[in-house]
Amino acid sequence: PVNADRIAEDIDALAGITEPGHPWTRRAFSPLFLEGRAYIDARMKAAGLETRIDAAGNLIGRRAGAKPGLGTILVGSHSDTVPDGGRFDGIAGTIAALEVARSLKDRGIELDHDLEIVDFLAEEVSIFGVSCIGSRGMTGQIPEAWLSRVSGDRTLSQGIAEVGGDPSVLLSQKRPDLAGFLELHIEQGPVLEAENKDIGIVTAIAGITRIEITVEGRADHAGTTPMDRRADALVAASQLVLDIRQRALEQAKTPGHFAATVGEFRIEPNAANVVPSKVVLLIDGRAEIRSDMEDFLAWIDGEVKTIAADYGVTINTPVRVSDNLPTPGAPALLETLERACDTVGAKHRRMASGAGHDTAWIAKVAPAAMIFVPCKEGRSHCAEEWAENDDIAMGAAVLFEAVRDMDKN
Amino acid sequence: PVNADRIAEDIDALAGITEPGHPWTRRAFSPLFLEGRAYIDARMKAAGLETRIDAAGNLIGRRAGAKPGLGTILVGSHSDTVPDGGRFDGIAGTIAALEVARSLKDRGIELDHDLEIVDFLAEEVSIFGVSCIGSRGMTGQIPEAWLSRVSGDRTLSQGIAEVGGDPSVLLSQKRPDLAGFLELHIEQGPVLEAENKDIGIVTAIAGITRIEITVEGRADHAGTTPMDRRADALVAASQLVLDIRQRALEQAKTPGHFAATVGEFRIEPNAANVVPSKVVLLIDGRAEIRSDMEDFLAWIDGEVKTIAADYGVTINTPVRVSDNLPTPGAPALLETLERACDTVGAKHRRMASGAGHDTAWIAKVAPAAMIFVPCKEGRSHCAEEWAENDDIAMGAAVLFEAVRDMDKN
Ligand SMILES: NC(=O)NCCC(=O)O
Ligand SMILES: NC(=O)NCCC(=O)O
Repeated sequence: PVNADRIAEDIDALAGITEPGHPWTRRAFSPLFLEGRAYIDARMKAAGLETRIDAAGNLIGRRAGAKPGLGTILVGSHSDTVPDGGRFDGIAGTIAALEVARSLKDRGIELDHDLEIVDFLAEEVSIFGVSCIGSRGMTGQIPEAWLSRVSGDRTLSQGIAEVGGDPSVLLSQKRPDLAGFLELHIEQGPVLEAENKDIGIVTAIAGITRIEITVEGRADHAGTTPMDRRADALVAASQLVLDIRQRALEQAKTPGHFAATVGEFRIEPNAANVVPSKVVLLIDGRAEIRSDMEDFLAWIDGEVKTIAADYGVTINTPVRVSDNLPTPGAPALLETLERACDTVGAKHRRMASGAGHDTAWIAKVAPAAMIFVPCKEGRSHCAEEWAENDDIAMGAAVLFEAVRDMDKN
Repeated sequence: PVNADRIAEDIDALAGITEPGHPWTRRAFSPLFLEGRAYIDARMKAAGLETRIDAAGNLIGRRAGAKPGLGTILVGSHSDTVPDGGRFDGIAGTIAALEVARSLKDRGIELDHDLEIVDFLAEEVSIFGVSCIGSRGMTGQIPEAWLSRVSGDRTLSQGIAEVGGDPSVLLSQKRPDLAGFLELHIEQGPVLEAENKDIGIVTAIAGITRIEITVEGRADHAGTTPMDRRADALVAASQLVLDIRQRALEQAKTPGHFAATVGEFRIEPNAANVVPSKVVLLIDGRAEIRSDMEDFLAWIDGEVKTIAADYGVTINTPVRVSDNLPTPGAPALLETLERACDTVGAKHRRMASGAGHDTAWIAKVAPAAMIFVPCKEGRSHCAEEWAENDDIAMGAAVLFEAVRDMDKN
């Protein structure tokens, strides 16, 4: 029911709007981002949508429904990218949503509900250091303190105003009209490709918990200090990295997605001939099932004590820098999506999202669900990120059928 | 035979010449370094020494001997410091050497040999990124390429000229007149203090070998990539850090000083939600016995292959960034120093130096040896570095007796 060529044309056009030499960079708040949005805005208008920027800086294309007051079906994703990567991350979902509107128009189908296609502002961690600004902002979930975050010579508040938002009413945004929200996204993992599935029906978006740990040893002379008289912060931190991985490997074997990664790791003084005195590391934990994360948090509190004792270093009580709960997809929408898959002949499976998404924020105020399409080798947030256009078109067809199904209820 | 108060006065005076707020910083080539040297120069002159700066920028105070042609006994150390630390490292030895000259003068003792007290230029890694410039330079051991190393707006060649050296003749320096060299230094380790010894007679200065290893994994999404499908460079590098430590602990239990430390460790992309793709680490290895280092080098070559296979990452063949052989102390001088210890009643032991020293460079052209005095908790290269003045004075007394002994041969 959708036009695959039109999807490819739009995704290619957006890929052309990138920092030269840094494919495919179109970071939120940049001139290139606004250029990309101008393209999407024009395509929305060409699809007969009435466009606006809401208070949170989201680009929205609207098509009024036949029965005013029934509410709005919202479909979309985001068009901003991480630095140096992301040809499909967010973009595939934004264009697939647009294609739904186009297909409805082509076929002369009028919905009872209002339909809105959305390009959320700044889903990725932006220059202001925070993410999902648009989806949080649309629903009044931006912490007030964020508005004064600074990047270069502007605040987040000014940044939102510059893209056309209205910070003065941002904190009180509400969308009581939302009847439901759907998002298509590339999986950003290897599972669908490996299992030769077309669509992942996302049962839950994993909670993301970030835990900071500081290991303090003693800076000693690397040449003279006997091996058995050291308090080497790097050695102790290395043990921690290995133990975290082992624990996560085991946890991942039980039901429910679980992952734990040490992605940030800084040592001091980082000098060739000095025993490292300090390591600060950040654990990124993901759990589909909250009790898994709680078990992990309890385990890590004990683990750092063991390592501190074994290696003669001091380790602080792990600090929960952020802690978001898992977000289940709306059960009725999961069934709607499954029916849609069956209608278009898509091979599907239920699965969790290990990654955070705008859907998690909209789900706090309205029924929301999302689907994944396969991507190559699970690569994402890099120039090599790839999704086949036919897979995206299949996903768009699923969205199309699901929207029509939602409209009937 | 020496005046402890005079030693304390000089060390305190030099401690007063420091970057404010950064005790005790007097880095080579800085205005503060030259201020410190002006103080030492004045004290050398007050001790009846004739001062000069040699081609390598070393400050030398000379006292002619009674029998011209017998050669020169050289005693000294360095007065430059690392950033933010080193109240005694080098300074103690420079002032102890000066005190030997003063005591000889006070007692009206004339030596047969010429005596030179030296403050070597830039023993520490300087702003030009290399160390032991003075001791290498005095003996024609500076690689020509070093002269064009740049820091700020000057080359090393210009830096040496600015402190009074003569780069035009530097590469051909020779000191065929050196009859022997002695250096006093703080131990920079905890052994003498722990064993309640006054003096360490340094049997050998450990060879220093620096080995760079690059671990390459794959940058994947930390949320979505299943734990068992990752190539995490940080996990593999952590295993390497632990295995290196284990190997070094075992090696250290056999005769001969041995240590191996990972002091530099950098990860990429160092982002919270990205599986680390790359770690570059630098091993600092020290061995008193060369075959220990050769065994270690062979072991590490095999070890990285095992880890690469176990963790699905790529590890380059370890690169020997630098590799210096151990330097034994001149056997006759070790005996001279032991006799001197016995004469002044110093409790002594033989031990290796895990740290590099100017002595290692002078030892390549003349009989050379060094002694250690205890320092507090082995701390060095930090503001907390401390040595008791009585211990330094005891060391100066040992030098005094050793110089008189050397003069008889
Ligand atoms: N989808 C996605 O990459 N989100 C970024 C936040 C995260 O999950 O780390
Ligand atoms: N003595 C000393 O600290 N030398 C610096 C070079 C080293 O041994 O790392």
